[in-house]
Amino acid sequence: MKITGYEAVEIDRASSRELRAAVEDFNTEYCAVLDSGDIEKWPDFFTEDAIYRVTARENADANLPVGLVYAEGRAMLHDRAVAISRTQMFAPRTTLHLCGNVRVMRQEPDGSFIAQSNFILLQTLVEGPTTIHLAGRYYDRFVREGGELKLKERQAVYDTTMIATDVVYPV
Amino acid sequence: MKITGYEAVEIDRASSRELRAAVEDFNTEYCAVLDSGDIEKWPDFFTEDAIYRVTARENADANLPVGLVYAEGRAMLHDRAVAISRTQMFAPRTTLHLCGNVRVMRQEPDGSFIAQSNFILLQTLVEGPTTIHLAGRYYDRFVREGGELKLKERQAVYDTTMIATDVVYPV
Amino acid sequence: MKITGYEAVEIDRASSRELRAAVEDFNTEYCAVLDSGDIEKWPDFFTEDAIYRVTARENADANLPVGLVYAEGRAMLHDRAVAISRTQMFAPRTTLHLCGNVRVMRQEPDGSFIAQSNFILLQTLVEGPTTIHLAGRYYDRFVREGGELKLKERQAVYDTTMIATDVVYPV
Repeated sequence: MKITGYEAVEIDRASSRELRAAVEDFNTEYCAVLDSGDIEKWPDFFTEDAIYRVTARENADANLPVGLVYAEGRAMLHDRAVAISRTQMFAPRTTLHLCGNVRVMRQEPDGSFIAQSNFILLQTLVEGPTTIHLAGRYYDRFVREGGELKLKERQAVYDTTMIATDVVYPV
Repeated sequence: MKITGYEAVEIDRASSRELRAAVEDFNTEYCAVLDSGDIEKWPDFFTEDAIYRVTARENADANLPVGLVYAEGRAMLHDRAVAISRTQMFAPRTTLHLCGNVRVMRQEPDGSFIAQSNFILLQTLVEGPTTIHLAGRYYDRFVREGGELKLKERQAVYDTTMIATDVVYPV
Repeated sequence: MKITGYEAVEIDRASSRELRAAVEDFNTEYCAVLDSGDIEKWPDFFTEDAIYRVTARENADANLPVGLVYAEGRAMLHDRAVAISRTQMFAPRTTLHLCGNVRVMRQEPDGSFIAQSNFILLQTLVEGPTTIHLAGRYYDRFVREGGELKLKERQAVYDTTMIATDVVYPV
């Protein structure tokens, strides 16, 4: 699969290691916020003008822009977060992310960079086993704002073809 | 979910990275011991007065002290380990842990620190597929003894609500 | 489980951390190639005379050399890769690896070293959920060629006892 704009180029190893560690820390905090249900903090991981997209791998492969979720701008993410946290229309569940396999792909002269990470999102319903809800890869563009990493773009491309599409919880 | 005493405070990044790497190494060795079935070595990861607790997330959320497993002191962990390794009353199985998303939350002046990690514990029965036995998060308090990390406390809080509670194997 | 030749010995921590990071980066690239379906690049991760073996844990435990897959030399890996990529005789599927729990076990005077990593290999069929296809551990012997890590040996030992053995896709 090729996601346009996410091709790798050579970057030096020490710099790549440092960025990888930073992305790992970022993903850990990002997932902890989602898994704790503290969803109104979720938009803080994005820039003001960020793009957030959740899409199936077959759509991404076909370069189709339409996905399960598409949001432009932190305000839209905020609306989404509030809507979800205050009108929970689905059965209670807990989620748990495990992230890994972080690849720093390209660093731009302005300090922004693109990266990929694999994720497994597990879901547990109140009276059920823990199952794989979604698995896939994040395609990210990071920038720094006030010394902190922020997502200018996160595309969560999932392999899973049969998902409960009524569930609009962020990934 | 808030586990009392596990709130984050700001610690400096370099120190946090070093501790994160140390916790990752620790978890890797801890899981390798459990996954190899070499369970009598498991108490060595704890301090003499350690607390070990395995509990469901809904119990932890409700601040209920009762869990699936509760042990106080390495001697009790040792008893448990011996009992399990010598009287295997359940069907043969193999386990495999995958750990990640390590967060170092707070460092104390005495060098001890608290951390969290996510884990997936897979289980394979002799004639079955590999399934998710448990998934959850470790809430840990680490100290150093003779240069080595030891657990003064490990709370394994699992999301999974339906588990085979006859299985008392350590997590 | 003991895989002969993979016993740990003490190596210094800084060196071990650096090697661990290198193995993590290596595994991430290795898995990305397999998960992208770009399988003809897969032999490039191995030395000319590499051994590649995929075997069940019960076989490995019994020290049986026979496994699901055994290949000696990059040429054989290449044949295998070409055969798979050009004659796909199984239903379309996507795969996703998550690797972790890397242990650097022993470093040799010549710079080669042995390491272990846990992996989960998820599989998604076109009209199905995402399931755990295989889970297990890599037992690796790494060497450096022109500054890059290469596998002189990779043994993928999987826990999963019931697998679709018609699927000969690399792990």
